[in-house]
Amino acid sequence: MTVGIEVVCIGNELLIGKIVNTNAYWLARQATLLGADVRRITVIPDAVEEIASCIREAMARKPQFIVTTGGLGPTFDDKTLQGLAVAFNRKLEVNQKALAMVKQRCFEYVKSRQMPTEIQLTPPRVKMATLPQDAEPINNPIGTAPGVRIDMAGTVLFALPGVPSEMEAIFNEAIEPLLKKAVGDYVFCERSIFVDNMVESRLAPLIDQVMHDNPGVYAKSHPMHSEGKPHIELHLTIRANSEQEPANKLKKALEEFTRLIEEHDGKVYPAF
Amino acid sequence: MTVGIEVVCIGNELLIGKIVNTNAYWLARQATLLGADVRRITVIPDAVEEIASCIREAMARKPQFIVTTGGLGPTFDDKTLQGLAVAFNRKLEVNQKALAMVKQRCFEYVKSRQMPTEIQLTPPRVKMATLPQDAEPINNPIGTAPGVRIDMAGTVLFALPGVPSEMEAIFNEAIEPLLKKAVGDYVFCERSIFVDNMVESRLAPLIDQVMHDNPGVYAKSHPMHSEGKPHIELHLTIRANSEQEPANKLKKALEEFTRLIEEHDGKVYPAF
Repeated sequence: MTVGIEVVCIGNELLIGKIVNTNAYWLARQATLLGADVRRITVIPDAVEEIASCIREAMARKPQFIVTTGGLGPTFDDKTLQGLAVAFNRKLEVNQKALAMVKQRCFEYVKSRQMPTEIQLTPPRVKMATLPQDAEPINNPIGTAPGVRIDMAGTVLFALPGVPSEMEAIFNEAIEPLLKKAVGDYVFCERSIFVDNMVESRLAPLIDQVMHDNPGVYAKSHPMHSEGKPHIELHLTIRANSEQEPANKLKKALEEFTRLIEEHDGKVYPAF
Repeated sequence: MTVGIEVVCIGNELLIGKIVNTNAYWLARQATLLGADVRRITVIPDAVEEIASCIREAMARKPQFIVTTGGLGPTFDDKTLQGLAVAFNRKLEVNQKALAMVKQRCFEYVKSRQMPTEIQLTPPRVKMATLPQDAEPINNPIGTAPGVRIDMAGTVLFALPGVPSEMEAIFNEAIEPLLKKAVGDYVFCERSIFVDNMVESRLAPLIDQVMHDNPGVYAKSHPMHSEGKPHIELHLTIRANSEQEPANKLKKALEEFTRLIEEHDGKVYPAF
């Protein structure tokens, strides 16, 4: 079945253009390849009210999953858990399971450095284990701050850290299996060809025709050069149950595209 | 003064993780360096109702500017203008100024290839010039689809193409001067240092102290490795009128950071 996901990326660094949002890209790619449907990606600042209102808006659109990135760490600007508490109208409280996870990571860290192994649960460390009521901490295999799961009104929300390696590790361990199960035998397939010697305006009616002749196939043109020789990537996608043979449908649509484009003096090159 | 901007990126390719959203990054960086405040970035699919609702939601937050990317081309999936028409409750109509721009670009294209110079205004070409009523076409210096400007309720919305080179060219020519004027002498300054030998939990109270001692300075820690030796980028920013000497304020805060971190056995390295 179609499984809808929203991604919410929390972090001023994304809004000031300090870094490219590779987390959103990575999550969108993984979720899509698993057969899920990423419906919206929102980037918001490290501000409690912004987080709360953005999460409330996403919840109102009723996705099966929401994945947030960023804002789980020990510093003042890590405000995701406060924002979630406001969004879901829940109190924040120290979660003992999360606290044990934080303590364990700190212990491993000092032990590996032959430092004194008495762990001080300082306020910044306790902060990472202070979750909205009834939230479930998720093991972070490679970092200190646990991920967080909150189930609410048919939506499962996962809050992941912003550090890409930690975000990816938690996704792979805790979210991927859940997504796979929710998606079932629904799959996403894609194929690309490159088209030369043809501007997008001339390709447009051929896209209309092929999509008409091949229900379920979505074809989108991506002009790669806006000047000089026209060069277009034509990207075909389909989402369907595997028994509907989506790969064959794409193949048939690609064959029709190739024939039509060549009839119109375009040139077709294979992509991936 | 503080000038708020929202960026809305329209395109399925961003939601399926086909490409990284470099347009959002580029726009966020440019706007920030010009002194403006990017408040939200939203990525939505090529769907009229999604575009309309997203724009309405952004308008309700009353930013001075909204910049959209993508969806202005000749193919069926280019739906930004339809979405804007729904959002603003305006009819779509062929804009003669936009049509002349499209015709001119087609003319230049065929002329440069020694092709027949009689331009056929086919439906895909007319589509690029079919704008919401009272919208203003904006010259696209290097591509066919004009940009579009719509003024509404104190917000100026610019719709730009998704092809990065075209988006950047229109921004530089038409939006940058307007932003500069709106921002006035408000500036954004930033400095970074790298911190070694100190985990984020131990850095957290030092950040609190420096921010307390240096009003207006925002300090955010970015852990670069989650395993092995801790390595953190500490990024300091400030937005202020230039007469408030923001660069000096950052310098003072950095000096305090360096002293405090070294007192706590951390090591500080200069970044950019």
